[in-house]
Parts: sequence; C-alpha cells; structure tokens
Amino acid sequence: MSIRIGILGYGNLGRGVECAIRQNPDMELAVVFTRRNPEDVRILTETAKVCRVSEAEQWKDNIDVLILCGGSATDLPVQTPKYASLFNVVDSFDTHARIPEHFANVDEAAKQAGKLGIISVGWDPGMFSLNRMYANAILPEGSDYTFWGKGVSQGHSDALRRIEGVKNAKQYTIPVESALEAVRAGENPVLTTRQKHTRECFVVLEEGADAARIEKEIKEMPNYFADYDTTVHFISEEELLTQHGGIPHGGFVLRSGVTGWNRENRHLIEYRLKLDSNPEFTSSVIVAYARAAYRLAKEGQTGCRTVFDIAPAYLSPKTGEELRATML
Amino acid sequence: MSIRIGILGYGNLGRGVECAIRQNPDMELAVVFTRRNPEDVRILTETAKVCRVSEAEQWKDNIDVLILCGGSATDLPVQTPKYASLFNVVDSFDTHARIPEHFANVDEAAKQAGKLGIISVGWDPGMFSLNRMYANAILPEGSDYTFWGKGVSQGHSDALRRIEGVKNAKQYTIPVESALEAVRAGENPVLTTRQKHTRECFVVLEEGADAARIEKEIKEMPNYFADYDTTVHFISEEELLTQHGGIPHGGFVLRSGVTGWNRENRHLIEYRLKLDSNPEFTSSVIVAYARAAYRLAKEGQTGCRTVFDIAPAYLSPKTGEELRATML
Repeated sequence: MSIRIGILGYGNLGRGVECAIRQNPDMELAVVFTRRNPEDVRILTETAKVCRVSEAEQWKDNIDVLILCGGSATDLPVQTPKYASLFNVVDSFDTHARIPEHFANVDEAAKQAGKLGIISVGWDPGMFSLNRMYANAILPEGSDYTFWGKGVSQGHSDALRRIEGVKNAKQYTIPVESALEAVRAGENPVLTTRQKHTRECFVVLEEGADAARIEKEIKEMPNYFADYDTTVHFISEEELLTQHGGIPHGGFVLRSGVTGWNRENRHLIEYRLKLDSNPEFTSSVIVAYARAAYRLAKEGQTGCRTVFDIAPAYLSPKTGEELRATML
Repeated sequence: MSIRIGILGYGNLGRGVECAIRQNPDMELAVVFTRRNPEDVRILTETAKVCRVSEAEQWKDNIDVLILCGGSATDLPVQTPKYASLFNVVDSFDTHARIPEHFANVDEAAKQAGKLGIISVGWDPGMFSLNRMYANAILPEGSDYTFWGKGVSQGHSDALRRIEGVKNAKQYTIPVESALEAVRAGENPVLTTRQKHTRECFVVLEEGADAARIEKEIKEMPNYFADYDTTVHFISEEELLTQHGGIPHGGFVLRSGVTGWNRENRHLIEYRLKLDSNPEFTSSVIVAYARAAYRLAKEGQTGCRTVFDIAPAYLSPKTGEELRATML
C-alpha cells in the first residue's frame, strides 16, 4: 500500500511536492488543501482531490502524512502545531532564529496527539544543516563556511519590487569565487559579508522612473544591499521574463579542519548544491522525509524531529539489506 | 564521565584514532591492544596502557567502546564478530562485496552478547556511502558518480612494490577533470574506467634494474593498471621519501538528477573530500561513530549497525537543543 500524502498550500512548494511524489512509486498524492476556492485550483494529479482547508480534519484517517507548504513568517508557526494534533506532518520552516520555539510547539502538539512531526526540512535548513553537523562531529577543530548561490533570493527580489518606480525585479546572490578558493586552499580566511557574496539585480522600471535614483536607493538599502558589492542592470520586462524566469539556487557548505597529534594534517569537506529549481529541490527533500515520518509514526514514535534526529535509512525506499548491498 | 575507548591494532589507523580521541574532550583512550610485545610499542597518550591482545577480555568492564584497527582482508572478518561478544565495537571494514556477510556475523555476535557494533565506518564506505544514499533518496531519477583522488592507493602501491626490480613505489589515483566537469554540467556521461581516473606511479628501482621492462610490466598489469592511462616516473629513494611521504586522499560523490512534472529541472549534489591524511580522517569518522555506539548501547540497543542506521545527532557531543540552536 502506498504512503498517502496530503499537501496544504498549493504554491511553488506545493506543486514541487506534487511532482516529487510522482517520482516515488511508494507514495501517492491523496489531497491538496487550499485557502482558495477549490474549483479555481487546477492540480496536475488526476487521481487526487482538491479541498478547502476547513475540510482537513475529515481526512484524519485517510492520509498518512500532511506536508505543510505555507510560508515561515506567518503560516507555519500556526499551521504546523495545529495540524500536528491531527496528522503526521512535515514542514520547511526556515526562520533559523525561531526554530527552538517552533520545535517546542510542534513537539507538544504532536506528543499529545500521538503524532510525529518533522520540521525545517529542505536544503538550508536541511541538507546544509546535516552537512555542517556531520563535518563538525568528524573534524572538531576547524572552521565552517556556508556560501549561497548562484541563485535567486526571493526576499531580496521582493525588496527591489517595493521600491517606487520598480515594475518588476529579480536578485541573484553570487558567492565570491576567490573566497571559496581561499577556503578550499585551507587558508581559513576570516570573511566579511562583502567578501563572501555579491548581489546582482535585474530591474524593470515603470514608465518614466528615475533610474539613477533607484540604483542609488538599491545600493544604499540597509541589511539587503548596503553591505554588499551590488550591481544593478535595467532591462525590459520581456528580457526579465525570458532570461530570468527560473528560480535556480544552490550553494556550498565547507568545513576546513586539522587532525594529527600536532594538528599537522589539513582536511576539507565540501558539500555543494546546484539547483535549477529551488522549490522543486526543497520539495524533493521534504518528500523523502515524509517517508521517514510515516515509518517513524508506524513504529509508534511521537513528537517533533529535525533532520538531525532521523537515521538516513528512513529516507530511502530500499530495505536495510538492499542499502548495504548496493550503496555502502 | 568520559567515554573510555580501547584500540585494537596500532598501525596508521590506530595512531589516527589515538590522535582523534584527543580532539574530543568527552572521550579518553584507556588502552591499546597489540599483537606485538607491549614493551616495544610506544604510544602518544601518557595516561593510556598498552596490553597484549590476549588480555583484552580482562578489560570487559573498563572500556565503553573497542575500536578495531586491523585490515579488512583477514583481521576484521574474524576480530569484529569475536570482540562484539565482549565489547561495543566499531570497525572500518571496507571490502564492499563482503559487507552483507560481515554485517550478519557481527549482528549475531553482538545481539547474543547484548552489545552494539558499527561496521564499515570511514569515508568509503562511510561518508561517501551516506552521501550516495541521501542523494538517491532526494533525487530518485538520476545518475551516481564516485571519483577517487587525488590520493595514494595502498593496494596499487603494493602491486608496484611486488614487481621484480622495484625497490619502493607510490601510486596516485587521479580523477579526470574533464569527466568531473561533464558530470557537473549535467551531461550524465557514461564513463569507462579509463575515462574516470588516471594512475601516476613513482618508482624507485633496485640497482641495475631494467626500467623499460618494469614500465611495460606496470602499464600492462591486469586489473590494476591495464585499463587506465598510467604514467610511470622513476625517481630516487630520497625523492620518494621527501616528496611522496604523505598519505593524502579524497574524492567526489556526485548525483545528477531531474525533477518537475516533465523532468524539466536539473539538480547536482556534490560531496567532496580533500584529505592530507587518509588514515587520520578515517579515524576521525570512526571516533565520532564510537560516540554513537556508546550512546546507542546506553539506550539498550544491540546488534549491528552501519552509517545508514544512525541518526546524525548521535555523532555530535552537542545536545539536541544546542544542535537546533546553532547548526540547523
């Protein structure tokens, strides 16, 4: 029997989850819950239903795992604890500073209901976190580096679009190659914000907008751009849509450390992601952890988990024997 | 109280484990067991004892985990099951084809004795296996690539030294950069043995040996060199010792896969190691898993495990709360 999945929220992430489920033959999409009118939501999976969020509770016994595809700012802090009292859940909560609080809320709700929740699944937090943790456990003496990009930052693109006179915009975060190379060479550089990443903006102006004023406003915007070397390109809306329509992302997690009685040997651990679609890759990680949530719940485990707490084998459709014979 | 570690076998790996223990304040080296005369074995840790292998059983209640540092060909298949009936054990068994059999033997012995064993820990098998497994679970549709090097292959260096007229030798396995680049570019190349790695040999001749005959013999040696583009350099013993004295290694695990309803988006996951000392890095991984063995045994778990079966958090000295606050 397949693992029956529900999706709550049908944006980029929800659609990515739907696509990922189709690549995993042991899973099926049962239902998509939406805040919109279900009749206005067209999904890709013919066999799945589209229902109102308010109907979710009726599905209590008909789905094995509910995947929450809302945003971290306001949706997930409320939704994940709420639905953990009805379902096994997985979310991609990514506000790093608020993870301890979110964990506690989901843990309490899930334990009371006898359900299992996995939070903060994706690539950062998620696979990047795992790689930081493994690398730190292996090389206790060393330095950590995380670089993001080249990729589209949704938050920075939104910041550009809020500027008066900007019709549309996209922002790429780009790691500084020479900084990456210094880390790889074992130089353990101490890097400022400016030395790690550059920012490249593609901006479509409203008719008659003042390009010079807008460029200045972008480059001086605190938090978002002022601490970075920022490049601004003004382009047509058509060019934006055709040349910058995707949502690529990725990045690098590195740990440079030493071993030996006199710390005489250097080692570098590097994990890299190069992603055509940020939401689809995130979704693919989430779906693998949905398999883990299903299995852990079947074992009778309850409460909240993160990627740190879950043995890798739970993510794979293969048995332990198959994994040992083919992947070890 | 510290986790008390015993080491069985004091070669490169055993010494590496000793060094790694010193980098982990929650652990201490209690004893090294050796097949040599203990008085002839000088270890680095002043507080630890050196004992005969035959005395190991007397330490049953005085060490928490025994790390087996013998070879995979003849030592570990016998030692790991044997000592799993007395201690929690960790080994680095690396004969991939015989892992299922070794797992079964260790599992049976450990279960009967109420002990926990972790086998095949290191980087391949070990961290490379983990990365293959995670990447396959995340991207079910894709291709796997493992490249080794640049690094010293002990087996190939030994093969060179067995040739008549060769006094000493060292062999480097080198990944072909253009093949790596083709994988990174998402080309999903089908690569022959020759297209993935080259082999570079540094050979010291015996007085009066026939260099041309030896070079031919190397390049035509089946399994070891015939299927590769092999380069042979004849050098002095002094150059070998000063320029090629280290035991560096490393490599790359890549998975290139697709997502999306029409498989329209490509993703690349790459894990890379660059190691000054192969045995010291392997030891560092083993010591992190010794922490896991200790904790799992404390929970009452018994039997055999591999890296696939162990939740990452067990490797870290930090608590779950600390990990969530600092690394997620």
